[in-house]
Amino acid sequence: MTGNRARPRVVIIGGGFGGLAAAKALRKSPLDVTLIDRTNHHLFQPLLYQVATAALAPSDITAPIRWILRRQRNVKVLLAEVTAIDVEMKRVTIDIPNTDIPYDYLIVASGSRHAYFGHSAWEALAPGLKEIEDAAEIRRRFLLAFERAEKSTDAAERAALMTFVIVGGGPTGVELSGAFPTIASRALYSDFRNIDTRKTRVILLEGGPRVLPSFPEKLSRVAHRNLEELGVEVRTNSIVTGIEADAVYVGEARIPACTVFWAAGNAASPLGRSLNVPLDSAGRVLVKEDLSIPGHPEVFVAGDLALVTREDGRPVPGVCPAANQEGATAARNILQLEKGRPTSKFRYRNKGDLATIGRSRAIADFGKFTVTGRIAWLLWLFVHIMYLVGFRNRVSVFVEWAYSYITYQHGTRLITNVDRRESQTSR
Amino acid sequence: MTGNRARPRVVIIGGGFGGLAAAKALRKSPLDVTLIDRTNHHLFQPLLYQVATAALAPSDITAPIRWILRRQRNVKVLLAEVTAIDVEMKRVTIDIPNTDIPYDYLIVASGSRHAYFGHSAWEALAPGLKEIEDAAEIRRRFLLAFERAEKSTDAAERAALMTFVIVGGGPTGVELSGAFPTIASRALYSDFRNIDTRKTRVILLEGGPRVLPSFPEKLSRVAHRNLEELGVEVRTNSIVTGIEADAVYVGEARIPACTVFWAAGNAASPLGRSLNVPLDSAGRVLVKEDLSIPGHPEVFVAGDLALVTREDGRPVPGVCPAANQEGATAARNILQLEKGRPTSKFRYRNKGDLATIGRSRAIADFGKFTVTGRIAWLLWLFVHIMYLVGFRNRVSVFVEWAYSYITYQHGTRLITNVDRRESQTSR
Repeated sequence: MTGNRARPRVVIIGGGFGGLAAAKALRKSPLDVTLIDRTNHHLFQPLLYQVATAALAPSDITAPIRWILRRQRNVKVLLAEVTAIDVEMKRVTIDIPNTDIPYDYLIVASGSRHAYFGHSAWEALAPGLKEIEDAAEIRRRFLLAFERAEKSTDAAERAALMTFVIVGGGPTGVELSGAFPTIASRALYSDFRNIDTRKTRVILLEGGPRVLPSFPEKLSRVAHRNLEELGVEVRTNSIVTGIEADAVYVGEARIPACTVFWAAGNAASPLGRSLNVPLDSAGRVLVKEDLSIPGHPEVFVAGDLALVTREDGRPVPGVCPAANQEGATAARNILQLEKGRPTSKFRYRNKGDLATIGRSRAIADFGKFTVTGRIAWLLWLFVHIMYLVGFRNRVSVFVEWAYSYITYQHGTRLITNVDRRESQTSR
Repeated sequence: MTGNRARPRVVIIGGGFGGLAAAKALRKSPLDVTLIDRTNHHLFQPLLYQVATAALAPSDITAPIRWILRRQRNVKVLLAEVTAIDVEMKRVTIDIPNTDIPYDYLIVASGSRHAYFGHSAWEALAPGLKEIEDAAEIRRRFLLAFERAEKSTDAAERAALMTFVIVGGGPTGVELSGAFPTIASRALYSDFRNIDTRKTRVILLEGGPRVLPSFPEKLSRVAHRNLEELGVEVRTNSIVTGIEADAVYVGEARIPACTVFWAAGNAASPLGRSLNVPLDSAGRVLVKEDLSIPGHPEVFVAGDLALVTREDGRPVPGVCPAANQEGATAARNILQLEKGRPTSKFRYRNKGDLATIGRSRAIADFGKFTVTGRIAWLLWLFVHIMYLVGFRNRVSVFVEWAYSYITYQHGTRLITNVDRRESQTSR
């Protein structure tokens, strides 16, 4: 594609936070940049759970990668799936035949997906939340469960249909479980005739001793209490041992529940394996201090695919600011190499960790001090609107949020692709 | 479901304009109403082409049927697909086993779908625009064509990828073809590196002698000229004889084009057949003057499924105001029957016909006078925002439109479900 050129070629795999930050950091460089992603859009992942809970529309939190980079004339965007990386021949293989992409420098920022730790059969029963289609699937299952409960004439079945289990007490699990009770009891209450949506049960199962384990213990306790105030049954030290169509098992105990969502773990992109370097158990690449891989100073890894160790020995967390910083550092190190200078060590600048729990409830950890409650929640709102890519999305999200907050309604309660049999139309 | 009750049972099939109007007209009645739809949402179909052209999000023009009717306590909404109607036994069969719904009165408002007139193989090659999923499919194909053109290295292939053919010069065909050139030349122009999106060709094929044939001839000429000003190649008297993956045939002439959209005709819902009454060639039910069917005064048909003849002999058009009026009349006639009074004839009150053509261009026909250009377009905007169901959608659509009009950007350029292979993640 890029042909024979004098300008050094940088290939970036992935249009998430890491890849985009890398592309932007190469803005004024004399390098020829190709960004490859298998979707046409950048996804603002921190708000993905809001699409899953019908608060925002998919297009509110996505923006075309081409559009984001439209003014950066040294970047080409390629909609394609990378199937392999050949670090010896310095080229990547994509899903378009005979169009290998050669590179002089490579930044791999292909992220991660949720993982089921060997229980791959659970994926169909308990969808996770990583891409925009995942959010649509969770929204669909959540809303359809009430439709099925409304039609059910069996009390036990109805109770199981109105029980939602979220597996995993990290930020995604806490966000999802914190949102569901309010939607059920407020937004959906007057819509149904045969069921009382206020009787909806939302159960959060966390395998470890506390929710949000990456936060200080004090904040975990606040989050736990906030979730209970919102109506969530929080069960810690509860490891899921089985999932069926109408039940979840914790040890020997059976929880009748027809809808289960998975937020219990991630596995890095399988592209890490084709780099032929050591990986950790989650498939993350053990990068060097400058984010390059052993033996190949021209190959960098950024974002969730990279396992970066901080100076105190703890790993850098898999959050957006970290991916942003890593992408930018990888790009700057390429510019250094181009100038014949040594690369720089990556240093994670922790600007504070935020987690939202539900309506007017959030926690924030700034290391030296912490914030909880409505102040933390307003801070969370402000930070997320500011970071949302693109003016349009920001206005639209603000309108939706203001509307939802005032009315308790969730506007995007659209179920699509339920039943696409073409032979009958009952509308 | 409805059990044994003293209150007469009305079943409404379809949550489109006709079915909703019927349900609302029964608001204060002592009747027990069940509205059945196979989707959970009402679709504001006049703006569907705006989802197809990436101007609006699916949730902007849909609202949950339950939510619309939430305060009307005598209505139950059932998410189910009606598979048959038994007018002798007075019950409808749905896709949930052993749950036939008995009725005392029935209103069938199950609408229509686009039809291929015996060329069913064309459906996969040339999707039509009737439901929200159709709009997502058209948007996906439109955007993906540019992605493929950007990757193509063959000039002829690239030209075919950048040629869009719309079959059918009715309102939907005119709206789609009028929107595409502006999006291509303005919204997408700076996004691509290898292609010049201003060279996009949009061809509108109409089988008859003029576009918008339901409007006065003078307005058809205005629309034709407006389309050409926008950059559309309008070809009248052009009947499509073949569609292939990379070409459309008009007689012997071959038009190289990889993307074709179908807006050339409708067929009524197949549920009409189970009424065992005469249908027209498009499958519409030939209703009596009070909208009931011959031999069954308790069964009414409203909306696109009904063929209603005006006093001057012309058919009532398949537009939203007609469906609204028919649904309301059917409901009022049921109330008359309940009181032992004779039913009323349906009278179509034509409030004027509007068609939008593209940016700042529309036509309006009020019988005694006509309006064109920017005034007609502003009128169209006003009417459509006013009629949109639900406050939230109205604000959101207004924000989107203001943004699009000022910036020429189309904000919801999201391609989903392109490639869901789980094994590789390149983001």
